[in-house]
Amino acid sequence: VILIDGKPTDQISVLDRGFTYGDGVFRTMKVSAGRVLCWERHWRKLGSDCLALGLTIPQRHLIEQDRDRAAGGLAAGVLKIIVTRGVGGRGYDPALASGGTRVIMSFPARSDSTTTPRDGLCARWCRTRVSVQPALAGVKHLGRLENILARAEWSAPEIDEGLMLDPDGHVIEGTASNLFLIENERLVTPDLTRCGVAGVQRERVLEVADRLGIECVIQAMSVEQVLAANAVFLVNSLIGIQPVTRIEQRIYPQSALVNRLALELDGLDD
Amino acid sequence: VILIDGKPTDQISVLDRGFTYGDGVFRTMKVSAGRVLCWERHWRKLGSDCLALGLTIPQRHLIEQDRDRAAGGLAAGVLKIIVTRGVGGRGYDPALASGGTRVIMSFPARSDSTTTPRDGLCARWCRTRVSVQPALAGVKHLGRLENILARAEWSAPEIDEGLMLDPDGHVIEGTASNLFLIENERLVTPDLTRCGVAGVQRERVLEVADRLGIECVIQAMSVEQVLAANAVFLVNSLIGIQPVTRIEQRIYPQSALVNRLALELDGLDD
Repeated sequence: VILIDGKPTDQISVLDRGFTYGDGVFRTMKVSAGRVLCWERHWRKLGSDCLALGLTIPQRHLIEQDRDRAAGGLAAGVLKIIVTRGVGGRGYDPALASGGTRVIMSFPARSDSTTTPRDGLCARWCRTRVSVQPALAGVKHLGRLENILARAEWSAPEIDEGLMLDPDGHVIEGTASNLFLIENERLVTPDLTRCGVAGVQRERVLEVADRLGIECVIQAMSVEQVLAANAVFLVNSLIGIQPVTRIEQRIYPQSALVNRLALELDGLDD
Repeated sequence: VILIDGKPTDQISVLDRGFTYGDGVFRTMKVSAGRVLCWERHWRKLGSDCLALGLTIPQRHLIEQDRDRAAGGLAAGVLKIIVTRGVGGRGYDPALASGGTRVIMSFPARSDSTTTPRDGLCARWCRTRVSVQPALAGVKHLGRLENILARAEWSAPEIDEGLMLDPDGHVIEGTASNLFLIENERLVTPDLTRCGVAGVQRERVLEVADRLGIECVIQAMSVEQVLAANAVFLVNSLIGIQPVTRIEQRIYPQSALVNRLALELDGLDD
């Protein structure tokens, strides 16, 4: 199902600024039994990302109406929401825009899907860096070329994810996931105030860790720190928590703490 | 006129990666008497930008066919070409893409257009920085949020352009133009190997200067250097060369050399 401003169509104006300039934001959510998981958080994040770019936040009841039409009949799958600044004339000036476009799409789960449980992920280091841009840091905007160039660095099916560094060599994220380390009994995740996408699952893990009394540190992270960690895991809204079993030559053992966090995360309502 | 893959329509698939990920490049060209100015250069730049992102370069005869249909009847206006990686599934992996989409659009010149001659431009400094990304430096890709955020910093109609710095404080470009200084009798323009868009008119100015035996330096440029320059001018394919008469408090006098370069640029065939 695809709805554009509430109408069933998969065609959008070629003058939409989402297409011409990447002038918009998006969310990718997991659907289970017709229900969008972590909806409240995704809605809040959609709103804060719109605010960061000065986009008009769509009306909640319209988005939720679209959501239910798109996801309601889906046993398992994915809901994607895109919000753009709308159709605009030539030129970057956002004052030229029409006010906004909302796109809601749902897809059934793929059989080979990343949404199905796995034994853990195999990761590699990417050469493509995440550029530093505090004005966009944390925001999941439509300009994703860095992630695409990073993802294009490998085609081997046994590699699940690539890890990206910033220009200073700090570890930031996976191409489509956020990263956590376990160092002894504490949790460490990269600081994303200069670059990267601060995902909803990252926020949930931080909350769960806090509830469990697990120390959690947000900081600049080095490659050496990742290699020295007891365990590494990746999160996003489709895979949930997935332990990393290997990053190139480094093999990580199973971690009881990662399993415990995954279990607790499942139990968290939103 | 709007043509998508040669067909007259202004609607594009919402699954096109140009829309979902900014996964494409574009060109904006001036049309005069049905002819696209500097076509050879734009075609070459389109090709090199496609190569930089691993996009399939459209067939030249198809693009030129579309170009003639879109621009042929236009007395004065703008031709825009967008090339994307095509329709793709979910996920950043470019291997998922359909092979490419080409969009050609033409617009008649606006009466208030930046294409009409002016007495010079009034510029300001932008707070939004251009991020450093060597993998995308020079390429005019579809992810233009930095330029949009910079352009959103002012609405005063007397301001024509905003100048952007990189994170280290080097002057890089205007939000939609390249920048040149005249220092005594030499030309200076920012180095764009780390960030920025290396436009076709910038290349033409460098060639013209070389032919005229004017010394030309491509280097890291400071704000102080801009303020101390004898003259400043901006270029893009719609405005050509435009002298900057003012940057905030700094007023620049007329420059015979800028006028000469503008004249020579007009005389350059492509």
